Formats: sequence, structure tokens, C-alpha cells
Amino acid sequence: MEVEQVLHMNGGIGEASYANNSLVQQKVISLTRPIREEAITSLYYKKIPRTVSIADLGCSSGPNTFFVVTEIIKAIENLCRELNQNSPEYNVFMNDLPGNDFNNIFRSLDSFKQNLMISNNNNNKFEKNSCGPCFLFGAPGSFYGRLFANTSIHFVHASYSLQWLSKVPEGIENNKGNIYMSSTSPLNVLNAYYEQFRRDFSFFLKCRGEEVVEGGVMVLTFLGRRSDDPSSKECCYIWELMAAALNQMVLEGIIKEEQMDAFNIPQYTPSPSEVKLEVQSEGSFTINRLEVSEVNWNAYENNWSAMDFESEECESLSDGGYNVSQCMRAVAEPLLVSHFGEDIIENVFSRYQNLLTDRMSKEKTKFFNVTVSLTRNA
Amino acid sequence: MEVEQVLHMNGGIGEASYANNSLVQQKVISLTRPIREEAITSLYYKKIPRTVSIADLGCSSGPNTFFVVTEIIKAIENLCRELNQNSPEYNVFMNDLPGNDFNNIFRSLDSFKQNLMISNNNNNKFEKNSCGPCFLFGAPGSFYGRLFANTSIHFVHASYSLQWLSKVPEGIENNKGNIYMSSTSPLNVLNAYYEQFRRDFSFFLKCRGEEVVEGGVMVLTFLGRRSDDPSSKECCYIWELMAAALNQMVLEGIIKEEQMDAFNIPQYTPSPSEVKLEVQSEGSFTINRLEVSEVNWNAYENNWSAMDFESEECESLSDGGYNVSQCMRAVAEPLLVSHFGEDIIENVFSRYQNLLTDRMSKEKTKFFNVTVSLTRNA
Repeated sequence: MEVEQVLHMNGGIGEASYANNSLVQQKVISLTRPIREEAITSLYYKKIPRTVSIADLGCSSGPNTFFVVTEIIKAIENLCRELNQNSPEYNVFMNDLPGNDFNNIFRSLDSFKQNLMISNNNNNKFEKNSCGPCFLFGAPGSFYGRLFANTSIHFVHASYSLQWLSKVPEGIENNKGNIYMSSTSPLNVLNAYYEQFRRDFSFFLKCRGEEVVEGGVMVLTFLGRRSDDPSSKECCYIWELMAAALNQMVLEGIIKEEQMDAFNIPQYTPSPSEVKLEVQSEGSFTINRLEVSEVNWNAYENNWSAMDFESEECESLSDGGYNVSQCMRAVAEPLLVSHFGEDIIENVFSRYQNLLTDRMSKEKTKFFNVTVSLTRNA
Repeated sequence: MEVEQVLHMNGGIGEASYANNSLVQQKVISLTRPIREEAITSLYYKKIPRTVSIADLGCSSGPNTFFVVTEIIKAIENLCRELNQNSPEYNVFMNDLPGNDFNNIFRSLDSFKQNLMISNNNNNKFEKNSCGPCFLFGAPGSFYGRLFANTSIHFVHASYSLQWLSKVPEGIENNKGNIYMSSTSPLNVLNAYYEQFRRDFSFFLKCRGEEVVEGGVMVLTFLGRRSDDPSSKECCYIWELMAAALNQMVLEGIIKEEQMDAFNIPQYTPSPSEVKLEVQSEGSFTINRLEVSEVNWNAYENNWSAMDFESEECESLSDGGYNVSQCMRAVAEPLLVSHFGEDIIENVFSRYQNLLTDRMSKEKTKFFNVTVSLTRNA
């Protein structure tokens, strides 16, 4: 199985089998809402297509799947009402790798369409509204490749999916004792990771450049970092603690050292300036906005408004170490299973949880998100 | 569960879990090939879009799923080569109800794309060819409703799906002892079935009329009949034998009489003139061709060319009663289970197989297919 398949099948951190995990993603979506709304408004004022085509890349499958798409459509509908325009039609393309559970997405089609008809007015009362016809499609395939016909998409959204590389960088056999970039990684490892990010993201931009109409917009959120140092604790610490759990098991003879040395995570958590550089050198898009936001590792500690989550999901999620370990498990388990086999999994995550609980009791730990809003050049 | 969901989830006779079943469908596809090729040629000469959008309605999920779409794209590619034109891009929309196994379709995405690159030249040798970029999408939803944006589709294909009605006709409580139209059905039952077909097919034409571009084409194949009599043996006998099996079980007290009386199949097997009348009165499309073809109930008896099927699938399929019973089981089992429960199923199909074997030893039994080729009016 290709590493990329292992990863995207689980939708990156967007995988929603774990409540805490979906809370982190939902918090990120809530934080980046103003950027999407600005992008939608700019798109809408520039061109009002009769059919608006929206693509959600790395949509995964779960309770959050339709959250952003619903919000985007409602924002367009609000603009239509403000400007006394007719509603457009919507094509909504839900993308993830072919192994994603699209059946699960499609089973929620009716409730997605019903939600579109309900709007939340200023008094927080729900009202029924009309909405333009909405056609939903599953679009299976890697976003590191073409997914849509030329100039056919108006709005691209991707949240917590683009930090995943198309593969583990080559030539990092000497990243011993680590599973990702770390402060102890040799320089060639840091460079190999960065070069893989550049190739992947640049090709992503080229593909989307062909697909997005002139004036069309993309809002992309990476799990990233604020620092210029690619081995900064900001982005690497979460994996360093997992490496620590695995290294304990190497010492105890449960995992072979060669196995540990050969395991690396195909992720890159870019800084805002790295994202900017790639967009500028690829040339298809112009940056409207580039921002960093922060979310606590333990989503339960974030300041939630009542509307941000379904409260049942959050009960008993006050143990930070448990929460983060579950969140990371959704992401890392398929990678670990594919490399080390099933047998070690409970052991790894039990150790990982203890390490997380210990660290989180001593310091404030956060995920950093890099969000960029882009417009397709003429 | 809605009857329509029960049905389309299983893709009508297009459901491909059973080898014989997929052989019948494959034979129909082979018989109707010249009509599709003519339609593609007429589309291509009238307008050569840069992006050709193809919709397969009621695509089901199984080994045959990509068969027609692959053939359509190859036919267009051949025309491009003949006329020295560049290949277009292709949007391929695979439609079925949301409960269809789209995951299974998407898992075959790679082999679908690989097949597109191989063409069968005149010497029956396989050659690698180029092909325009092809983007595949799952389009979940009922085709008795809008599925696509206005004027966005160039070619619509539906094979063995449109004979399914959106629901069992109302007011047929007096169709006692029958489960479909039959020579013993009261007149009001025949009328109710016909009226439901008219409403459903007319609405289908209206929806597609909005979606298909001017000059775009549809090739639709119904399980139908040649006769003008809607209760003709041509289309009803296969269900009459199933009713006979169920009636045996009523007599033996295994099924309650009221349960049997309340069970009817939501299907209508139209004649060519009924199809023609609806197309003409709805008005969005013009008929290019309207044909009836025949397939033996036992697909194994049809004259297969070596290329028409994978021979492993056909071994041990020489027992006609068994084959047809399995074929019909793929279609009828979900309906029977939803009405009568799981427990009676083996019993029903064992009796049905015996009845089929007996009849097929005494007479030549066939399915009749009505195929219509249509062009969207200006």
C-alpha cells in the first residue's frame, strides 16, 4: 500500500472517528471562517456564475464532512439576499483518496441538503430558507494530481490535509531515533523534507491553477508552524513524544532498532513564509491573506462557543493526554500498523498517552495552523 | 426504507454480484452498442466540446460498472483520431442511489484509467494509446430528480435501470395473488402501473432536459416488451413464476395471505410505443432510434463472442433455472426481505428455481429490451 493511500484514507487529522480529533478540526474551521467569508465575498463581487463549483480537498468522512461546504453555500446565499440576486446552482465536489469512505458521506446526503435549507438568524433562532439547487459529487483521487476539468472550479477548500506529503522524502535513512523532523535530525533530513514539500505543494498549485477559473479562490489551512526553524518544537514536539514511546519499546526489545530507523512520517508543517515562497514561485495564484492561528493540543481547553460542538461528544474528554493520544491515533495508527504491524499499537498509544499527560501538565502545548487565501490570476 | 432505495441500492438487474446477472447485462450492453456508437458520432459531429460530460444513471457497482463508459470514451477517441482532432477532457459521472456501493466503484478507479489507455486494434492485439484526461465522480441520488447543473451533460446512458418506478403504484390492493402486472390483474392495476410509469418517465425526461446540453444525447435501455399488452407474458412471466412460488407458500401457511396481497414489484416494462408517446408529449428530446432486442433468460444460451465475457464466470452456469433464479435474486431479494423478512428467502428461491427449470425446459424464454436514442432539442 502506498504511504499516501495509508494517510489520506484516514483523512489526515481531519479523520473524524475520534470526538476530540473532530473538535480540533472544528475549532480550526471556526478560527478560519472570517478568511473564507472574505474570499467568498471577493469571488462573488468579481463574478457571479450561474453555477458555483466548490471543491473540498481531503474531505475525509464523518460528522464534520459537510460543515465547511454548508457554511460556504450559506455565505453565498446571504450575499444573494443582500444584493437581491437569484441563488446560483451549486456543484459540490467532495475529494479524498479512493480508499476514503465515500459511502458514509453519501448516506448523509439528505441531512446535508436539509441543513442547507435552515439558516441561523441573528436571534439564534432557526428559520427555513430557500437555497439554490445543490448537486453533490464524490471526487476520488490524490490532490497531488489533476482532479477536475480545466477552468471548472470556483472555490477550493482544504483544511488539515495539505501538510501530508505525497510520500516519505527519500534519502533520510540517517534520521535515527526520530520519526519526523526533530532538533536532533541531520541537516540533510530537514532539507529532504522541505524539498518534498516544495515539489508536492508546487505541483498542487499547478494542478489547481489549471482547474480554478480566473478570479476563483482557494482557502488552504495547513497544520504548520510560526517559527522559521523546521525542527521547531511548535510542529515537531507531538511526533517527538511518539518517537520517545517507540524508542522505549526499542530499548525493551519490543521493536527492532532497524524498524524504528526506517519509519518516518510523510508530513511537512510549513511556515507562512515557506507557503508564500511556493505560491509566488509557482505563479498561478496571488495571496490575499496569510495567517497563523493556534489551537490547544487538547481541544477541550479551547474556548468553545455553544455552537461550535455537539456537547455529548465532549463529555469525559477532560483528560488531555488521553484526548491528544486519541486524536493522533486517528492519524498515526494506519501508518504504524502498515510499518510495525497491529500487535504493538495498544502498547505504543498507552506509552504515548502517559508521555503526553506528563508534558501537558508542565507546559502549554499548541498546534499552529497556517491559512492562506489565494486568487487565481488572470 | 423507501421502496426506491431498496431497489436502486441493488442497481436493478444491473446488480453484479451474480455472474449470470452480469452476463445478461453485458449481453444487453453488447446488443445496444451500435445505437450508442451512432449517438456518439452524431454528438461529435454536431459539437465537439473541450470537455465531454458523460453520465451513467443507475450504474450499480461491480465488474460491469465501467464497461459502457470506457466504450463511450474509446469511441470518442477513435473519432478524434479519424478526424485529426485533439482529445477532449472527460467528466464521468457515475450515478446511483446514495446507498449504492460507491466505495467499490472508486476502488477500481486505477484499473478504469489503465483500461482507457489500452485499445483493441483490428488484429485483436492490444495497443497502448493516449486518451484525454478523464475525471471520475460519484453522483449519488435518484434519477427521478435533478442530479446535475443546468446544461452540463453531453451524453446520458442508462441500461436496465429505468424500468424501476420511483414507488409501487397506489390503489392496487386488489392485485391479489399477483406481485406484478399479470393476465389475471384487474384493469385498475394495469392502469395504475402505466400511470406511475408515465409520471416517473416524464419527470425523468424533464430533469434530463434541463441538464443535457442542446444537441446532447441519451441512450436508454429499459427491460421492456414488444407487445402492446402490458400484462403480456413477455414481461410478466418471470414475476408470475415468482408469484407462483410465493402462492405455494401461502397455501402451506408459511406466508400470510394478506402479506402476499400487499406485496407488489415497483417496476414497469414499457413497450416501444409507450416510450415514444412519453418522449413526444414531454417534448425536451427527439427520438433518433427506437429498437427492441431480445436476450435469453439464461444468459449462457445467448450467442457470446469470445470477447463478451470472462470465461471463468460462466463455468457451471449451464443450469438455466439456477442461473435465472440467481439473476432475479439479485434484484428481488432486497424487496422480498424488506416485506417478508429474511427467513423465507431460501425457501422462495428454491421453489422459484424449480419452477424456472421446469418452464425453461418446455419453452424458449426471453427478456425484451427497449432501447431509445434521443437528442436534446434546441
